[in-house]
Amino acid sequence: MSESSPSTYASRMAQMRPSTIREILKVTAQPDVISFAGGLPAPELFPVAEIRAAADAVLTQYGSRALQYSQSEGMPPLREWIAGEMGRRGIKAEAADVMVTNGSQQVLDLTGKLFLNPGDVVLTENPTYLAAIQAFQTFEIRFVPVPTDGNGLIPDALPALIRQHRPKFLYTIPNFQNPTGITLAAERRAALARIAAEHGLVVVEDDPYGKLRYRGTDVPPVKHWDEAGRVIYVSTFSKTIAPGLRTGWLVAPPEIFNRLLILKQASDLHTSSFDQLVAHTYLTQNDANAHVEKIRRAYGERYDVLDSALRAAMPASYTWTKPEGGMFLWITGPANLDALDLLKRAIEQKVAFVPGRDFFPADGGRNFLRLNYSNSTPERIREGVTRLAALCREK
Amino acid sequence: MSESSPSTYASRMAQMRPSTIREILKVTAQPDVISFAGGLPAPELFPVAEIRAAADAVLTQYGSRALQYSQSEGMPPLREWIAGEMGRRGIKAEAADVMVTNGSQQVLDLTGKLFLNPGDVVLTENPTYLAAIQAFQTFEIRFVPVPTDGNGLIPDALPALIRQHRPKFLYTIPNFQNPTGITLAAERRAALARIAAEHGLVVVEDDPYGKLRYRGTDVPPVKHWDEAGRVIYVSTFSKTIAPGLRTGWLVAPPEIFNRLLILKQASDLHTSSFDQLVAHTYLTQNDANAHVEKIRRAYGERYDVLDSALRAAMPASYTWTKPEGGMFLWITGPANLDALDLLKRAIEQKVAFVPGRDFFPADGGRNFLRLNYSNSTPERIREGVTRLAALCREK
Repeated sequence: MSESSPSTYASRMAQMRPSTIREILKVTAQPDVISFAGGLPAPELFPVAEIRAAADAVLTQYGSRALQYSQSEGMPPLREWIAGEMGRRGIKAEAADVMVTNGSQQVLDLTGKLFLNPGDVVLTENPTYLAAIQAFQTFEIRFVPVPTDGNGLIPDALPALIRQHRPKFLYTIPNFQNPTGITLAAERRAALARIAAEHGLVVVEDDPYGKLRYRGTDVPPVKHWDEAGRVIYVSTFSKTIAPGLRTGWLVAPPEIFNRLLILKQASDLHTSSFDQLVAHTYLTQNDANAHVEKIRRAYGERYDVLDSALRAAMPASYTWTKPEGGMFLWITGPANLDALDLLKRAIEQKVAFVPGRDFFPADGGRNFLRLNYSNSTPERIREGVTRLAALCREK
Repeated sequence: MSESSPSTYASRMAQMRPSTIREILKVTAQPDVISFAGGLPAPELFPVAEIRAAADAVLTQYGSRALQYSQSEGMPPLREWIAGEMGRRGIKAEAADVMVTNGSQQVLDLTGKLFLNPGDVVLTENPTYLAAIQAFQTFEIRFVPVPTDGNGLIPDALPALIRQHRPKFLYTIPNFQNPTGITLAAERRAALARIAAEHGLVVVEDDPYGKLRYRGTDVPPVKHWDEAGRVIYVSTFSKTIAPGLRTGWLVAPPEIFNRLLILKQASDLHTSSFDQLVAHTYLTQNDANAHVEKIRRAYGERYDVLDSALRAAMPASYTWTKPEGGMFLWITGPANLDALDLLKRAIEQKVAFVPGRDFFPADGGRNFLRLNYSNSTPERIREGVTRLAALCREK
């Protein structure tokens, strides 16, 4: 007898396994493995000395206030800074519209809690961010893919999907999408905002990589066109300062914001007061833009090296995306490729990547590879591609 | 038309308002208000200088690893330290049994996600911790109170409640309970573990205050007797180091642990790497026990002052608990007392407390007051009681 055992959760949990990525990362932790797996920003670019100075300054300036309980909304100085940053990104926001969260991942959890019940539908790009699939899957929902092309999701396809599936929201990563690296075209963003307004569709716009553009020109976020108050904009300091601080944020229309705030409070009261103030002090005591510029240049260089190496070595049956920023590139192999099998052989050759299948929430092929280029030096990228391409040419 | 609007959540949200405590805290933020409201630890006792040194040492010793993504389970050195601490509290645990969370509050969210579906029942003390009510309420469940007396919940009452309500779990705060300050007697803890084993009842044992005993002798946790693997033990550094670091933990049987881990990963990937290492470095580079002893002495003194002042000034129709530790004392007023009305008058006299009603998840009286004594100096406690007692004597 087990009156306390999970009920519907039991079946849910049976489907939920630790992500393939995390399992692979364990294998690839050895330093002799060249890993295109994972999604780690380059640790050698973390502003360690500046964070050390910021932590010291925070405890000098704020004293015990930096260590006390604080508001669920976030620490006021950081919310103010973020509101200013939103303006620079083309979003009108006051500090009151900003909620600080434990990375952007927590926003996915909170929006899931607010909107999703078992059987509900979420619209996504296909493929999409693995941890978003995991976060929403917790609520036993169904994913419906939105048709996409090289310019991102196709807004014209939405009205029919909305009528047919009555989705609770659309989840999208418009900039340098994870896993494909694709960017949603500007006119599609405006169209998406218009369709969201017309159909009462909530849009969760996840923008962790937007600041990491190394080519082309910035495109305003979907939220820029959101006059109807339908878009929840999500971003993070994980890629521009450091992920270990777990500091992200959301900007949402007041009605949604207030509900998410109650859920944030019930989830963990608030995000670390200390980390919030360290982030704020780092941002205001340093040339944070110059630091982001340094990251952009490094990732751009690594992307160029990766793309060149792939062009030089990969068989003609493999093609890949040309991201203008971010951390990921997406390879399409021949139709008969089993990327999981390729990975097994690759690990023997001390090179790793993530097979694409797990990024498809609904259905998807076995012949895709996601390559991360932010966390390897140019030298290792060249050597890794040499090893990988040799395997791809084998058969 | 609003296809994306919340459905069952809409009704849920209508019931959910920001906690009365938080609203009161806003009113009582002025320095001239003597506040027995809130549940803040004494900020003047935070080890600010030691945390500053720890933060510096962490960034020197770990460098970028302190700022990178890390395991959802928590940082290995901190998990090791906690496992040792569990031994000192009478719980057998390896580092592998320990998960680091965003304070203990996040564990309530994760256990809710794992076990609760709409309509489910959770057993609790009545009254119980307000933020636990809020966390579990998110899942649209029903609370069933367990009969209690001055020694905590009465285990003999459990079998009938289990048979009648088939609860998903029992939530209890055995040490210096919030809000009553009552401690669960040792023999009842053993009985609770036995009944949990016999009936397959999961127990969520929330122990934020156990280290804050200023009188009497420590009692082992319920988890100490948990040979059947039914107890999820929850604690935090919020009261012994600082709440702003949002660093707590759980210890759970492997099967439950693994499910909670997947939910933790989906919720926010992991708790701040930096804060975890700062906590660990603080704990190992300082005499952390001596610091807890200092907190204990201060809270014991404040409790004594509060109890003496109440005895000297309160009308005979008011009685209160005699906690042996923790941060809260619970006053029962005359049956016709409306504590909310008393609060309104109290705020005019610049003294605040929390009316008891919100701590009753199912039903409960209007004639209770929760007083926090950790966050006021002895002088202010005396003055606050003088003001409060004058109002209580008015009628």
